[in-house]
Amino acid sequence: MASNTFGKLFSVTTFGESHGPAIGCVIDGCPPGIAIAPEDFVHDLARRATGKSRYTSQRHEADEVEMLSGVYQGTTTGTPIALLIRNTDARSKDYASVVDTFRPGHADYTYWQKYGIRDPRGGGRASARETAMRVAAAVLAKKWLQQRFGVAVHGWLAQMHDIVPDLPAGAEIDFGVVESNPFFWPVAAEVPELEARINALRKAGDSCGARVNVVACGVPPGWGEPVYGKLDGELAAALMSINAVKGVEIGAGFGCVAQHGAQHRDEMHLDGFTSNYAGGILGGISSGQDILASIALKPASSIPTPGRSVNLTGEEVEVRTTGRHDPCVGIRAVPIAEAMVALVLMDQAMRHRAQCGDVGEVSPRIA
Amino acid sequence: MASNTFGKLFSVTTFGESHGPAIGCVIDGCPPGIAIAPEDFVHDLARRATGKSRYTSQRHEADEVEMLSGVYQGTTTGTPIALLIRNTDARSKDYASVVDTFRPGHADYTYWQKYGIRDPRGGGRASARETAMRVAAAVLAKKWLQQRFGVAVHGWLAQMHDIVPDLPAGAEIDFGVVESNPFFWPVAAEVPELEARINALRKAGDSCGARVNVVACGVPPGWGEPVYGKLDGELAAALMSINAVKGVEIGAGFGCVAQHGAQHRDEMHLDGFTSNYAGGILGGISSGQDILASIALKPASSIPTPGRSVNLTGEEVEVRTTGRHDPCVGIRAVPIAEAMVALVLMDQAMRHRAQCGDVGEVSPRIA
Amino acid sequence: MASNTFGKLFSVTTFGESHGPAIGCVIDGCPPGIAIAPEDFVHDLARRATGKSRYTSQRHEADEVEMLSGVYQGTTTGTPIALLIRNTDARSKDYASVVDTFRPGHADYTYWQKYGIRDPRGGGRASARETAMRVAAAVLAKKWLQQRFGVAVHGWLAQMHDIVPDLPAGAEIDFGVVESNPFFWPVAAEVPELEARINALRKAGDSCGARVNVVACGVPPGWGEPVYGKLDGELAAALMSINAVKGVEIGAGFGCVAQHGAQHRDEMHLDGFTSNYAGGILGGISSGQDILASIALKPASSIPTPGRSVNLTGEEVEVRTTGRHDPCVGIRAVPIAEAMVALVLMDQAMRHRAQCGDVGEVSPRIA
Amino acid sequence: MASNTFGKLFSVTTFGESHGPAIGCVIDGCPPGIAIAPEDFVHDLARRATGKSRYTSQRHEADEVEMLSGVYQGTTTGTPIALLIRNTDARSKDYASVVDTFRPGHADYTYWQKYGIRDPRGGGRASARETAMRVAAAVLAKKWLQQRFGVAVHGWLAQMHDIVPDLPAGAEIDFGVVESNPFFWPVAAEVPELEARINALRKAGDSCGARVNVVACGVPPGWGEPVYGKLDGELAAALMSINAVKGVEIGAGFGCVAQHGAQHRDEMHLDGFTSNYAGGILGGISSGQDILASIALKPASSIPTPGRSVNLTGEEVEVRTTGRHDPCVGIRAVPIAEAMVALVLMDQAMRHRAQCGDVGEVSPRIA
Repeated sequence: MASNTFGKLFSVTTFGESHGPAIGCVIDGCPPGIAIAPEDFVHDLARRATGKSRYTSQRHEADEVEMLSGVYQGTTTGTPIALLIRNTDARSKDYASVVDTFRPGHADYTYWQKYGIRDPRGGGRASARETAMRVAAAVLAKKWLQQRFGVAVHGWLAQMHDIVPDLPAGAEIDFGVVESNPFFWPVAAEVPELEARINALRKAGDSCGARVNVVACGVPPGWGEPVYGKLDGELAAALMSINAVKGVEIGAGFGCVAQHGAQHRDEMHLDGFTSNYAGGILGGISSGQDILASIALKPASSIPTPGRSVNLTGEEVEVRTTGRHDPCVGIRAVPIAEAMVALVLMDQAMRHRAQCGDVGEVSPRIA
Repeated sequence: MASNTFGKLFSVTTFGESHGPAIGCVIDGCPPGIAIAPEDFVHDLARRATGKSRYTSQRHEADEVEMLSGVYQGTTTGTPIALLIRNTDARSKDYASVVDTFRPGHADYTYWQKYGIRDPRGGGRASARETAMRVAAAVLAKKWLQQRFGVAVHGWLAQMHDIVPDLPAGAEIDFGVVESNPFFWPVAAEVPELEARINALRKAGDSCGARVNVVACGVPPGWGEPVYGKLDGELAAALMSINAVKGVEIGAGFGCVAQHGAQHRDEMHLDGFTSNYAGGILGGISSGQDILASIALKPASSIPTPGRSVNLTGEEVEVRTTGRHDPCVGIRAVPIAEAMVALVLMDQAMRHRAQCGDVGEVSPRIA
Repeated sequence: MASNTFGKLFSVTTFGESHGPAIGCVIDGCPPGIAIAPEDFVHDLARRATGKSRYTSQRHEADEVEMLSGVYQGTTTGTPIALLIRNTDARSKDYASVVDTFRPGHADYTYWQKYGIRDPRGGGRASARETAMRVAAAVLAKKWLQQRFGVAVHGWLAQMHDIVPDLPAGAEIDFGVVESNPFFWPVAAEVPELEARINALRKAGDSCGARVNVVACGVPPGWGEPVYGKLDGELAAALMSINAVKGVEIGAGFGCVAQHGAQHRDEMHLDGFTSNYAGGILGGISSGQDILASIALKPASSIPTPGRSVNLTGEEVEVRTTGRHDPCVGIRAVPIAEAMVALVLMDQAMRHRAQCGDVGEVSPRIA
Repeated sequence: MASNTFGKLFSVTTFGESHGPAIGCVIDGCPPGIAIAPEDFVHDLARRATGKSRYTSQRHEADEVEMLSGVYQGTTTGTPIALLIRNTDARSKDYASVVDTFRPGHADYTYWQKYGIRDPRGGGRASARETAMRVAAAVLAKKWLQQRFGVAVHGWLAQMHDIVPDLPAGAEIDFGVVESNPFFWPVAAEVPELEARINALRKAGDSCGARVNVVACGVPPGWGEPVYGKLDGELAAALMSINAVKGVEIGAGFGCVAQHGAQHRDEMHLDGFTSNYAGGILGGISSGQDILASIALKPASSIPTPGRSVNLTGEEVEVRTTGRHDPCVGIRAVPIAEAMVALVLMDQAMRHRAQCGDVGEVSPRIA
């Protein structure tokens, strides 16, 4: 399987550069019979899009999805579904100055080392613009998972730089609140503080990191394939493949280092587990509890503050990144992280069905 | 690719249960011409083995490797290399009591939910005994990477419960010290404290978590495949697939959340990078800096302290895990984590060569 | 790897239905540095196209290729290359009568059995229109193979119904002649006979089968991966996946059944092999001789002559296929077969390089 | 997926050389709950084995299967099943003379060109001994296909050199007869003629080719994945990967070249198809009719008659192959071909279930 394809059975191949004519994807292996229309992509693409608030990049893309194949009379047919989004607001001249310079903290240098050639416009293939297609493909996955199993995948911003939501540990997240502010923040009263912080970063010409949490509810027990196709292993790969991600946790994550076994192991009663330090996964297989993942996103390197670097001709230079960028890329990562979790679950659901048959009645299933 | 196979081109398929007749692996795609003998496996398997000190499980396995194929007159031939290790010290009677009970925090429950059947002896396939084959397979990878590129992969224990080595941030690790104590601990003077802690845990019938760090030095720039085969994405999957791992970090990891962009982006000079918050990976591709990964391992659930659970017939029960177990499974994870890093690098090196040709002279390579 | 993707390292994913808005492909894993322009696709697409002579279907498609990604300033960058061709001459009303009927000899029935839904317009995904993308993708493969290794892939029509070219066994084919007539026929003087036969078939409302041969010259010894990735095994899959193909031969093919070993085994001298019954492949690996493949293509089922069938509501019906069709689909299969051979060789060349390094000087190579 | 692995979901990885210590395989992805015991492998392995009659090679191997993993209390658990067969009757000294010589018609030359090293003993990995593991793995596939779908796979020898069974076209094969003679020949009265032919070949120091047919009955409609995972495409790859195979046909095969469309397309009635020129596959998907495949096997190159060749030091030499060999390798290919068909069907059945769910009631299914 080539490296721009994600998933073994629900396989999503993405293509396109930030400032090329278009981005797109091909979804192969999709179950037939799913109702789908161009409108279905609007909601999640808008959540991921730039230019929707003053707290993200000001690039304005329509993100209009054209369905090129695999759908007949509004229904998936089982053949490959190609989705296409034309790029309409690329400003490649912003990048003229970095054509022969490696911006620090970017893929400029490594792409060039690998391929001996790179498309410098807007970061080319390394741009987060690619993630629009992950979000689009996941719309189908989310729909199928919801309809067949009642699975729901929700993300939120769990930390922005040093700002942490003032919520008791393990508090239930109100996704109504999360969806009602441009930060996907779970505490409405704290949004002004985030706004102030972003404004300050813009002024300082700097950026900051973030933490995003995702929960998948309703996942039946039994999904995940030991030992190299573990559910948590694939979630880790999927989430780490998102631009700027530097860390992934499942359940207790790094907090487990300082735990004892008697505390960490989630005890079982007939009416459920007493805790969820495992994050819903044991031995790489879902337990029926909520799947909990958390990721760290680095502060974007694309900032106006000048940085020292080298260029193609082997000289030291100073780089000042212009263009339109996010002061905190972690914010828009929320729908992207959801998408990757949904794609992993979709693929694993199909793999489980292949080997073990449709999920049936297995007892005693813990509540 | 099925789920007990790791790697696209350097493909390792492992098999075997903890208390079955044997464990083994098949390494497919190995470059021809590598000198290899049974003795070559001894060192790393011994580092991973139980029963070598009183601070790990007391199961004593010879871990003698039989090479069944793919080697002719001491040299790899390019055909699949099968390695076999017979299990010799399994004590399945220790598990009689859990045949119909799901131990809390174990894969017992999820395997049974997935497959409707499970091998309860020693955890079956979910046992960390499987990782012996990862270590064995990685011996070939480490050898090739070292000989062709000078790549060296080293791990150490970076935290045990709340004990952290007293070293300045970013201090160079003395691997002579690491290899001279059974904890893979980088500060010799602190070893007695670790011994005392393990003894206390044994007495308390409990276990603790740990953090393991791995560094890969000498990796050329250019390895890693965007966007779903990124080097960091594959490291995350590889490391998360190790038993008990709950978190993975690359470079600054979760520390990047509270960083600013001007700080995090590693600036470049002609004689090198000024820092390594990226952990040697930009845009999913190696930069030529050291690759830095860190993982969190949960405290083992196999502890004598009784825990509440349910059984196959739907009753609530109390489980007390007997058998021979590690109070801190993170210790022995050091060579396993190294192995997974080496396997990822080996596979990516071959994939890079396939697409871009042998690593040649590309300049200006940063020192 | 999903089933609309071909190739492990040079991976081509195609999409699109005959009468949908477009067909296209994504080529992933392409080596960087190949010069490519839209004009490069014109020649081979025209060879495959319908409507170029009166002896094929009269559907006229411009087959204009849009390059959506993976190419920067006329050169491949190593990132996925998406190619798009809009459908412009679909006449879906021709298919109104078969919306609820299964045409005999078509995929109508089997797609419906598999997916429970099908796109009846022009055969949907089962149409040979999909093969335009194979031809397009192979343009890149042919170019790389030619430039790096001097590999050339040529096909010709070797039989049309009962008409066989009057050539001595093993005669060298004159590809100038092949390319100068719309039948890809190697004997110019026989072309009028073929024309007469096609005209007679049109009149009779019938179709006929054909045999296509392909030769790949200049393939270095050593390509092909035993045992399930053998070069001949992959050629067989690639060629059998072309619409209407019912048989594949390598070298002597079915002729070997009545041979003796002393005759079939190609003896070796220092200046070469004495014969090529093996078709250039021994043990699944290329020997350096010409690769020889031959395929059988069935007579198309889409003919005006009525045929008996059943419909969706379970009644027996008579079907008369209208629309624009080829009386001998084998003719246009020539460039398609070449394309599949080139794609297999490209992928194997890269796989060989991954495991064994760039092709170097190995002696004694037989001339 | 590496090249010694067959199948995407029911994945069989084989290893081992003809004269190494053992051959074996790992079956990954096997459905849980299949009853299996070492005795289950005896029948098919004996059908494939040498030394069972005087008409095949006289090497005597016990072919005793050891199940190393994946089976608990006689039932598959869903984890990888490793099977091991020790080699017990290798006579490597027979090959001393070819250590530095390339036997004509063998993989000696190509393995050496590819890898720069080869195991000359008994053909190493290129030996048909490897196929014992295909047969063993297929025992599980045959069992599952039979129990769940009533699928039965049967092969027979359809031609030996110029001897063809005297049966009317399309006559039903009596598999009782086929299994009662060492030639898998469908006409008992003709067996003495075959015996005489083999004896004559032995005397002449020569070998002959053969044709093997396989039929799979009871395959439900809907298996097979367009467009590069077509059922016929995968059968072609699977069958061509068998040692000595030079041609593959589905249904009418090469006979279709001289057919007309009105004849070839199998018309449909409510009580069934009127013919089966398609061989049970339309558009790459099973139609519910019998799957029909036919293969050509070359005459073995391992014959006492001397042949001209070259050696490692670049001299022309004469080679006389000693060792114990089959005068007609096609005979023992019958169970191997069955095995490959069963493995393809098993994998496709699971892939179909993954995408489309368990085979249910779809109407109107043609009888």
